[in-house]
Amino acid sequence: MNRKSETTEWFQNLQDNICKSLENADGKAKFIEDKWERLGGGGGRSRIIRNGNIIAKGGVGFSAVEGETPEKILKALRLEKGDFFATGVSIVIHPDNPMVPIIHMNVRYFEMSNGIWWFGGGIDLTPHYVDINDAKYFHQELKKTCDIHNENYYPEFKKWADNYFYIKHRDETRGIGGIFFDRLSDSDNFDFESRFNFVKDIGNLFAPTYTYFMTKNNNLEYNEDNKKWQNLRRSRYVEFNLVYDAGTKFGLDTNGRTESILMSMPPVAEWEYNYQPNIGSKEEYTINMLKKDIDWINI
Amino acid sequence: MNRKSETTEWFQNLQDNICKSLENADGKAKFIEDKWERLGGGGGRSRIIRNGNIIAKGGVGFSAVEGETPEKILKALRLEKGDFFATGVSIVIHPDNPMVPIIHMNVRYFEMSNGIWWFGGGIDLTPHYVDINDAKYFHQELKKTCDIHNENYYPEFKKWADNYFYIKHRDETRGIGGIFFDRLSDSDNFDFESRFNFVKDIGNLFAPTYTYFMTKNNNLEYNEDNKKWQNLRRSRYVEFNLVYDAGTKFGLDTNGRTESILMSMPPVAEWEYNYQPNIGSKEEYTINMLKKDIDWINI
Repeated sequence: MNRKSETTEWFQNLQDNICKSLENADGKAKFIEDKWERLGGGGGRSRIIRNGNIIAKGGVGFSAVEGETPEKILKALRLEKGDFFATGVSIVIHPDNPMVPIIHMNVRYFEMSNGIWWFGGGIDLTPHYVDINDAKYFHQELKKTCDIHNENYYPEFKKWADNYFYIKHRDETRGIGGIFFDRLSDSDNFDFESRFNFVKDIGNLFAPTYTYFMTKNNNLEYNEDNKKWQNLRRSRYVEFNLVYDAGTKFGLDTNGRTESILMSMPPVAEWEYNYQPNIGSKEEYTINMLKKDIDWINI
Repeated sequence: MNRKSETTEWFQNLQDNICKSLENADGKAKFIEDKWERLGGGGGRSRIIRNGNIIAKGGVGFSAVEGETPEKILKALRLEKGDFFATGVSIVIHPDNPMVPIIHMNVRYFEMSNGIWWFGGGIDLTPHYVDINDAKYFHQELKKTCDIHNENYYPEFKKWADNYFYIKHRDETRGIGGIFFDRLSDSDNFDFESRFNFVKDIGNLFAPTYTYFMTKNNNLEYNEDNKKWQNLRRSRYVEFNLVYDAGTKFGLDTNGRTESILMSMPPVAEWEYNYQPNIGSKEEYTINMLKKDIDWINI
């Protein structure tokens, strides 16, 4: 089996498995699927879930696209003219209960007709309220998975995530970070199989990790003020995705399927001019913890 | 009086007058003011209004900034190194009643230390529900004002607005357009005074035009479905401002005051995956009218 079909098949199965796990954990909502085709080659399956017991709005997208590489992509990735192939899974889940964090994951494989290939991806958690134990758990799980493959992965990719998931105009990280990696190709220590195995393990980590938070935190009580705060945090998520997120910008720039790209948007968001949380509040604590370079594991 | 102080003073007064008119028409909410200073030179007065009888959230900003021109601006505007001066008024008003349109206006003056100068600006209306008579009235008022100064202004600047206020990834205009203009400097037919007089007339047109819509349309009834639609339309406003709006992008890129730049955000916005209005509905009609090159005056 060649790399294209191997990765395509694996990501497709990952989408299936994650959707099943999320439906089980939610206990009410079911994914609806939109299949789409890309002008120029390939297509995808967007799966959307909403109004669940736990999930307010979410999407789990799979795509495998190919064809002539758009000029913008050649330029941005500094590639020579040629055909491209890209496949992967993208997820954003917005929960109803403000005590459950928002999560995002993307895992992807990219290949050019001249033989260049790489894996990329990331997973990051955006709690509306930062909870130290949840943050520690999340980063420990990521570190454990990274360490199986290479002990430089976690420190390197954690730092990358801190820098990537950063809302410059707010001087805030999007959430408590996670890992981010790109252009993982062959080198002295790695080949296609070892890189793919790492990406598989990250992909497989998503469902158990997020359903853990869904199940545990959905029991936590909340009030109207917490909902209001959730909506204010969701607006920062919108700002990050529309102003900075490379995948979103690229998708919109290259005439991607808008509804699939923007399935990352929250169900609702609120903006309030110069909102300042009360001193000593949980909201203020959260803002203070949205910083780069926090060592969540040893905090 | 030199051009800097002449324009600064005029725009400052415009902000005062517009705020007074909006408060009068609203009848409840009052503007609060934040004065700010810019690192590097100048500053501004952000005025914010919310929870009014008619206005849900709005901002009327004045600024007069100067100093060394940031590298990004030099490059984007293809200017030679030098100091810049910029002053102007920016407004976005989000009404509570979905039958009242959102409005935006910006009028500004820019000058470089080498003597280059120009005026720029625009005003555009974003109804949640397109009403032909309102659209016609709005464009007629703009045309009347433009025609006093030059009969090419309206057709040229109307087209410019159609192209500028366009959400490419949705293939929708933001609303029913208006006028947009930039780099109005001296030429065979125009000098500083004639350009400034045009900008003054546009600035002065804002208050009577928008308070006309506020007063007239706030009497129209609406239901929960209309509110939902309003929030979906507001999310398109967010998408335009964060993805395309040159002023917003520039402000964020050049470390402008974030809260002043993003005072254009609506109070609330909703996203729903692949929302399709009912066939024959007012919502569908609105979508169908969000197109470039509609001759609103003779429609």
